[in-house]
Amino acid sequence: MSDMIGLMAAALTTLSFLPQALLVIRTGKTDGISLVMYIMFTTGVAGWLVYGILTGSLPIIVANLVTLLLASVILCLKVRNTLQTRAQGAAVATSAPIAS
Amino acid sequence: MSDMIGLMAAALTTLSFLPQALLVIRTGKTDGISLVMYIMFTTGVAGWLVYGILTGSLPIIVANLVTLLLASVILCLKVRNTLQTRAQGAAVATSAPIAS
Repeated sequence: MSDMIGLMAAALTTLSFLPQALLVIRTGKTDGISLVMYIMFTTGVAGWLVYGILTGSLPIIVANLVTLLLASVILCLKVRNTLQTRAQGAAVATSAPIAS
Repeated sequence: MSDMIGLMAAALTTLSFLPQALLVIRTGKTDGISLVMYIMFTTGVAGWLVYGILTGSLPIIVANLVTLLLASVILCLKVRNTLQTRAQGAAVATSAPIAS
């Protein structure tokens, strides 16, 4: 009974990042997503993966490998958008005195 | 060593939802957030909480109680915004023939 609930919970929390990754890939938008969240989360999931390898737990390895992959996609797109926004902000700041 | 890594991983994945919850509360915006993700994730975390209670694991209970609280805040605001957007869409659809 508890194993069944644990497996269902693991499947849900792992696969939940799939619709978020697909949404970010489809729209390319990451405004509403927290950069700090995904840095902390991806690092944490990588930690869980190391923990799974060290303790030899296959369910922990598999679940966190999938989550790490999906969370990394979201984090990469968020970092790309953040850098682009900053570069545009810097360009505006640089060009503003010339334009005015 | 592995316990240390596991605890750090648990702290990171649990607390990572704090900056996301704060961002959503501060901006009120949930456009970039996947509704399906948070429905699946919140249900999964509730499942982990039940699993923790059934197996008597205090770390699983504590970590998932905190995550459940934070993820629920994000989910509630996302649902509220989704319902508001749909209501506005319906209002526009209803008023359009009268206005034109």
